[in-house]
Amino acid sequence: MAIQLGPNQYGKAESRVVRVYRDTARHQIRDLNVSSALRGRFEDAHITGDQKDVLPTDTQKNTAFAFAKEKEIGAIENYGLTLADHFIARCPGADGARVEIEEYAWDRIPVDGIGHDHSFVRSGAGVRTTHINVDGVGPDRRAHVVSGIKDLVLLKTTGSEFHGYFKDKYTTLQPTNDRIMATSLVAKWRYDNAEVPDWDKSYDSIRSILLRQFAAVHSYALQQTLYSMGRAVLEQHREVAEIKFSAPNKHHFLVDLSPFALENPNEVFIAADRPYGLIEASVVRDDASDAGSAWHAVPGFC
Amino acid sequence: MAIQLGPNQYGKAESRVVRVYRDTARHQIRDLNVSSALRGRFEDAHITGDQKDVLPTDTQKNTAFAFAKEKEIGAIENYGLTLADHFIARCPGADGARVEIEEYAWDRIPVDGIGHDHSFVRSGAGVRTTHINVDGVGPDRRAHVVSGIKDLVLLKTTGSEFHGYFKDKYTTLQPTNDRIMATSLVAKWRYDNAEVPDWDKSYDSIRSILLRQFAAVHSYALQQTLYSMGRAVLEQHREVAEIKFSAPNKHHFLVDLSPFALENPNEVFIAADRPYGLIEASVVRDDASDAGSAWHAVPGFC
Amino acid sequence: MAIQLGPNQYGKAESRVVRVYRDTARHQIRDLNVSSALRGRFEDAHITGDQKDVLPTDTQKNTAFAFAKEKEIGAIENYGLTLADHFIARCPGADGARVEIEEYAWDRIPVDGIGHDHSFVRSGAGVRTTHINVDGVGPDRRAHVVSGIKDLVLLKTTGSEFHGYFKDKYTTLQPTNDRIMATSLVAKWRYDNAEVPDWDKSYDSIRSILLRQFAAVHSYALQQTLYSMGRAVLEQHREVAEIKFSAPNKHHFLVDLSPFALENPNEVFIAADRPYGLIEASVVRDDASDAGSAWHAVPGFC
Amino acid sequence: MAIQLGPNQYGKAESRVVRVYRDTARHQIRDLNVSSALRGRFEDAHITGDQKDVLPTDTQKNTAFAFAKEKEIGAIENYGLTLADHFIARCPGADGARVEIEEYAWDRIPVDGIGHDHSFVRSGAGVRTTHINVDGVGPDRRAHVVSGIKDLVLLKTTGSEFHGYFKDKYTTLQPTNDRIMATSLVAKWRYDNAEVPDWDKSYDSIRSILLRQFAAVHSYALQQTLYSMGRAVLEQHREVAEIKFSAPNKHHFLVDLSPFALENPNEVFIAADRPYGLIEASVVRDDASDAGSAWHAVPGFC
Repeated sequence: MAIQLGPNQYGKAESRVVRVYRDTARHQIRDLNVSSALRGRFEDAHITGDQKDVLPTDTQKNTAFAFAKEKEIGAIENYGLTLADHFIARCPGADGARVEIEEYAWDRIPVDGIGHDHSFVRSGAGVRTTHINVDGVGPDRRAHVVSGIKDLVLLKTTGSEFHGYFKDKYTTLQPTNDRIMATSLVAKWRYDNAEVPDWDKSYDSIRSILLRQFAAVHSYALQQTLYSMGRAVLEQHREVAEIKFSAPNKHHFLVDLSPFALENPNEVFIAADRPYGLIEASVVRDDASDAGSAWHAVPGFC
Repeated sequence: MAIQLGPNQYGKAESRVVRVYRDTARHQIRDLNVSSALRGRFEDAHITGDQKDVLPTDTQKNTAFAFAKEKEIGAIENYGLTLADHFIARCPGADGARVEIEEYAWDRIPVDGIGHDHSFVRSGAGVRTTHINVDGVGPDRRAHVVSGIKDLVLLKTTGSEFHGYFKDKYTTLQPTNDRIMATSLVAKWRYDNAEVPDWDKSYDSIRSILLRQFAAVHSYALQQTLYSMGRAVLEQHREVAEIKFSAPNKHHFLVDLSPFALENPNEVFIAADRPYGLIEASVVRDDASDAGSAWHAVPGFC
Repeated sequence: MAIQLGPNQYGKAESRVVRVYRDTARHQIRDLNVSSALRGRFEDAHITGDQKDVLPTDTQKNTAFAFAKEKEIGAIENYGLTLADHFIARCPGADGARVEIEEYAWDRIPVDGIGHDHSFVRSGAGVRTTHINVDGVGPDRRAHVVSGIKDLVLLKTTGSEFHGYFKDKYTTLQPTNDRIMATSLVAKWRYDNAEVPDWDKSYDSIRSILLRQFAAVHSYALQQTLYSMGRAVLEQHREVAEIKFSAPNKHHFLVDLSPFALENPNEVFIAADRPYGLIEASVVRDDASDAGSAWHAVPGFC
Repeated sequence: MAIQLGPNQYGKAESRVVRVYRDTARHQIRDLNVSSALRGRFEDAHITGDQKDVLPTDTQKNTAFAFAKEKEIGAIENYGLTLADHFIARCPGADGARVEIEEYAWDRIPVDGIGHDHSFVRSGAGVRTTHINVDGVGPDRRAHVVSGIKDLVLLKTTGSEFHGYFKDKYTTLQPTNDRIMATSLVAKWRYDNAEVPDWDKSYDSIRSILLRQFAAVHSYALQQTLYSMGRAVLEQHREVAEIKFSAPNKHHFLVDLSPFALENPNEVFIAADRPYGLIEASVVRDDASDAGSAWHAVPGFC
């Protein structure tokens, strides 16, 4: 029996990189939260404290800011791949790198009906994300891109049923043919490879499909809604190998107004905090590329 | 010397009242967070524990839900005034009531270019608020309405300067003619009286003015931007007696890229969390009605 | 009718000042969150953007850090008073200053039964606070100190009743002779003057009294518990002029296990999040000094 | 090419189960946050919306509360295993179950030097956790227990160095022989099997070892501190197969006081929020049992 170092990684989390493009009077902004982590041969750092193979987390942070100028940002997927490749090439101990980025959306403030050149209001409808994982360099290089959206809060006031479930002695839930369905969606999709022609276009389209399917599908369960959303994405986006969802069922309970001699035909609800249902599901293409380290360190089941 | 009960109030906080209007296939939703509190003659409850004059907080909550059906909601200001008057009339010990409401905005999900009938996505650009305070009943009744917006995150990539400030031995800040200015705005305005013809219309217009002024005014300080925003609201809305702001200066520091032989002409910034500047300012009309209890229990200086 | 600047203040919020005392091998730590704000004659900053009378928030921050070395920290009340007096003396436009400080407690890590010299674990049972307000200088100087504790989470599994309350048509609550009572206490007490001989000793004693009274008093309502806690503090601390509480009633609802043929004699509860009762009460000394600006900008009713 | 359902699970998250033991006047409390999830043959629920094999999340919640009375709680590991086995046996579609529990610690309030019988104050120094994963029933049953602690905030004022690291053109960090080291530790350890004789005793001992090692080890890097903490746990606890850490390096930067003509010999620091280092490491026993689904759905790398 021996005790030894197991899997490990280290990096700098949550550098808030804000890049302004001001080549013309009509400015553009990319507002990011960047995390990076390296994995590989770091036994000495752990066992003896020798740091000779360690590229400090502070340097990782500096690089994220420097590359925002030196390499430009563009789509977060490109920026993340550039950073990951750089870290593997540069850091003596690194065999692999993970870069995780969140992007916050800003809308131009309307002034007399026109979006302002340099003034913005933060949009709240979802945060764009990407998780980049790269292993190795040169011919052995394997790069994985898992992109997604989170904090996308959705609600239907009807078109949602739930009944026919298995019952046991602990079941008190009543079936319903009409309920509110609400969630704060997290969706993450793995691209089949890292050479997607237009990351921004894919993101915009997938986001639209997710919204549209949530709205259009008559729901018999949150599971079924998620599956239909995922299926639609895969049908329309050949570049997506699989998609995973983590979706809290944000319960809206019908309030019992009968003590007050009032009817409540699905009009007054209380939005509950905890507990909540939590549905995690994935939809996959059976000829998808191997996932490799793609989901490495991506939080949650999904 | 004697020790005695001082000011006090009690109520139910954060009832999440969701009201769906489904008279036609095109549903509407009002999604609220309702808090109420009563003040008055509650010495017995505190000193002997006798609750005979206390309308329980649970009953206050029930009433908020029942009224969502019985009285309809409409604008949150009307709903809050109705609740406050009811509590004062009903509760034996109450001389005054406070009702505080947040309203979350939902946008219809676009499907083939048209907003869906019953599917919504939560908008993130600001939360509408109101603070209702009523004292007394009948001819002595005084009602105050302070409405507002919070969590409205704004940013300008240029058009903001800061210089000419007082310097002492602890000053290291460099003056600037061009910086990012960003804030997460809280604005609260007191209506001159509680008989505003169209609360929703006033809110929408004031929100637009705040956005437009933030965008359009060339700024020499966040103070000056806030003042101009407040002034514009008062000039265009006679029904507003005063407006108060609480605005964190969300610092975006220019990153020093010179160690990497890179220039940084206001292109790459780090968004900082803490510390942050905090600017609180108000703009008032000199012939405004008396504020009375209007700002009672409204959090913050502003 | 004219539109003009109303009350205003500005400053730097949440500087995280950590001071280590290492004069001996047995280190000490004071871990603070410091906010300051100035008020006075700042019309120019708001109306024309002229900053000549403004001591920048960045300088306020620098001063907080410099004074941690230059003046020592000691009790947060002394440190806050020193900062406030300095800002009023220094800043051309300032008539008054507010300094707000939170202090986080650290316990020494026990090693072989003895607290370690320089290794600490953060204690979670409450955060110490102070709100300092000073107006003027010299003979006209008025200084106010409101100190307190927050995030002190308390719970009793019995010894709490609630019944005899007023009922109306919206009342469904059942009276109880035995319930869980729980809160996350915020207490703030105003010292009668700013020359308290030992701030740390007063704080420790008041904290103990609050805990002991919560435990020992048989409760007929949260109001009555708070009043008895406040009364005990004032009886034993002549230096305290008044004390205010803000106490959420963190509901623990008895779970109905009867559908499962189980009794539940006050054994299984669900801890609810929202809504919650919110009780705010104060206990005052009738010969207390005038409060002046003491509660200026202290958030909440209490 | 075909599109199909991939991995999925569903359950009820964050039921706040509070169990009071009141067999004697000296009450005891176990304060839990319980989440459960089932995985298995749920294709119908996703594809057609047929729920016949689905045990509703509401029933899972009911069961958690009922079992708190019916089966008692005891150590959270036992309670979680009992729930997981029950769900697999009961739910038609379930092949496996996950139960995740957080336990909040309460200290008795001291009154005259003695801990009170039924009044408690919440302790903040860490939250106990467990992640239970069970697959199958009868002879094929495989049960995994990953227990841990989170939100354990630790700090050393000295005894921490960082130097000798790899440098590149983006490196600006200066080496140091004396710095503050601070973290908010998450540790999770997998028990070698699910028949640990005394879960509470193991937890208490492991928590103590983690604290002691953090204090006692002179650190050359957070990695090395974590490794030594993990090694000590494995050396002293044969029942532990492996341990994983996720540890933010909560930077405390030395403040440059030289512009104010002040020295700062490691006395005044600013505690930073973001970005932060993030170190994830594991220590394993080379003859450990197979991890199987043990880490399934455990968030984070560690």
